[in-house]
Amino acid sequence: MVMLTKELKNFIMQKNIVDTAKQAMQRAIEHELDLKSLFPLSATSSATFHIADFGCSIGPTTFMSVQNIMEAVNHNNNQASTTKLPLEFQVSFNDQTNNDFNTLFRSLPAHRQDNYFAAGVPGSFYGRLFPTSSLHFGSISSSLHWISRVPGELTAAGRRDSIQCTGLDEDVARAYSGQFTRDMEAFFDARAEELVSGGLLAISALCLPAGAVLAQTGLGMIFDLLGACLVDLAELGLISEEKLKSFYLPMYYPQAEELEASITKRRCFSIRKLVKMAPPSPEKSQKLIQTSDSQIRAVSEAIIKQHFKTITPQTVDLIFQRLKEKLAENMDAITSPTTLHHLEVFILAKRL
Amino acid sequence: MVMLTKELKNFIMQKNIVDTAKQAMQRAIEHELDLKSLFPLSATSSATFHIADFGCSIGPTTFMSVQNIMEAVNHNNNQASTTKLPLEFQVSFNDQTNNDFNTLFRSLPAHRQDNYFAAGVPGSFYGRLFPTSSLHFGSISSSLHWISRVPGELTAAGRRDSIQCTGLDEDVARAYSGQFTRDMEAFFDARAEELVSGGLLAISALCLPAGAVLAQTGLGMIFDLLGACLVDLAELGLISEEKLKSFYLPMYYPQAEELEASITKRRCFSIRKLVKMAPPSPEKSQKLIQTSDSQIRAVSEAIIKQHFKTITPQTVDLIFQRLKEKLAENMDAITSPTTLHHLEVFILAKRL
Repeated sequence: MVMLTKELKNFIMQKNIVDTAKQAMQRAIEHELDLKSLFPLSATSSATFHIADFGCSIGPTTFMSVQNIMEAVNHNNNQASTTKLPLEFQVSFNDQTNNDFNTLFRSLPAHRQDNYFAAGVPGSFYGRLFPTSSLHFGSISSSLHWISRVPGELTAAGRRDSIQCTGLDEDVARAYSGQFTRDMEAFFDARAEELVSGGLLAISALCLPAGAVLAQTGLGMIFDLLGACLVDLAELGLISEEKLKSFYLPMYYPQAEELEASITKRRCFSIRKLVKMAPPSPEKSQKLIQTSDSQIRAVSEAIIKQHFKTITPQTVDLIFQRLKEKLAENMDAITSPTTLHHLEVFILAKRL
Repeated sequence: MVMLTKELKNFIMQKNIVDTAKQAMQRAIEHELDLKSLFPLSATSSATFHIADFGCSIGPTTFMSVQNIMEAVNHNNNQASTTKLPLEFQVSFNDQTNNDFNTLFRSLPAHRQDNYFAAGVPGSFYGRLFPTSSLHFGSISSSLHWISRVPGELTAAGRRDSIQCTGLDEDVARAYSGQFTRDMEAFFDARAEELVSGGLLAISALCLPAGAVLAQTGLGMIFDLLGACLVDLAELGLISEEKLKSFYLPMYYPQAEELEASITKRRCFSIRKLVKMAPPSPEKSQKLIQTSDSQIRAVSEAIIKQHFKTITPQTVDLIFQRLKEKLAENMDAITSPTTLHHLEVFILAKRL
């Protein structure tokens, strides 16, 4: 798994979507959060509301999302018919150990309120990160498509047609979907133990449109072009053909129903809200795609370097120079009205 | 305040002292920790014991110290006459935002037990860092001598004889001691709010021998030599004389009684154990002092660079080259049997 840069988060979660997600989340929290039952004993003594952001990366989007959650919780508290709780917030920012926590900590909102305490928690969210029943709210945004590893059967067998799960090759699709299922099981098992009964989990994820496969979407096409660049460079002898055979991107975009099933299957969570947000307008998409080479570089460069260990910086530059060219050549197909777009899906689940 | 490198921690807290501190701490925890009263409701459900290490720096010493605390807590739990609590540990590592948390996180013990959850908490320990009544154990080792700032009246007035509080100049001593008192007030006020009633605070600190002033100790002499190096370089025109006038080290070594008074004064803590550990043997001290130039560089370089903003790397090198020479010239005086040594003081205080 690789951290998602704020650039790519901005790229895939545009401002209008963030705003819609914000409103959906705030309304859902207001409906579903029952502070009195979470803090039955805290009428007078202080109550700490513990929020965790999973896959926080390094910044601004995360801080805004946490702010939205706190606003909604405060709103609930202020609307309470009985005594207002003396709330404090413990906010834990989680990401892989290789995330740049130094930068994250330096960019924490400087003038936080007195009752906002921040911490960083390193580690994979496919395992336990917090003590049992210690969280009141978990949030994960644009990170669940990073599977924990490329399925071993694929890298062992050698590559078929693509560096990703396009959905067109059945074996590849089965291997990826199996890994996604196992990862989701681990994710929801860990969160089920960490969240208190009545606690909430907010998930924002990019999903494939119903019935579609990745190869039919703009994002899928872009990553396929990246694959084509790698093939070109292997043919030129600049990267190892052998290594290319075992190169896959550790990303899997489920359909919303697949994600939904992975939540309900565990019987620990109940889905209280599921919103499929409209894709961005074609004009906005086109604008974003025109600069997508740098965004794709931001997410894939580290993965490429890690896999092709001896790759030179010049070769890496060449890959993304080629990608820019290929994007220009294929812009019409990528932005065509018949090309499909990913959906931003927002789910609010409650720990039973 | 500047982080204490593990090298300097090793330099001032030698292994024999660490071992003595470990035993003193374990025995004190076993006497003073009452898990049943800390977790009255947790006979069957899991109980999270929250440990915070203040001024953790980047490593090994901190991890060992936390391990000692967990062992002692587990020992208490196993000795319990009634049911054993299903304990989990939340360990929070705190240091200034400019601490290298990335390195800290990468060097966390790789095979931690399932019930050991780690987090990093950035910020000054002279303010609130955790929610109200959320800590069961606080630990601070070799960090309380870093005062939050050099007293403003000193930097405004221009330097007297030394870059530190040697204890020989009354005005300087009063300014430093005033800052230390204010800082301790802030430190213990914050910890009093964060610790639950019955929670413990373990403090390890280097203190001056009773009745002594810093100038009479080996450590004081070494830092005075650093001051002499800066004067030399100012005379050579390599650093600004003007800037030198306002340069002070933000360190203050109290006498044990001064530290003790700052705890009991707040009436929130009761001192349950106070141990003054024997200084290292003269042979060991001598060995350590012979390589102390690099240790002193580790703690003071960043402070010097920050103050003398335009200083070149060559000038910085020159400072510590001179220090090495001056240390060699003054080795006899520093290691003489009449020269005093700092005391390692261990205090265990209980939140009332």
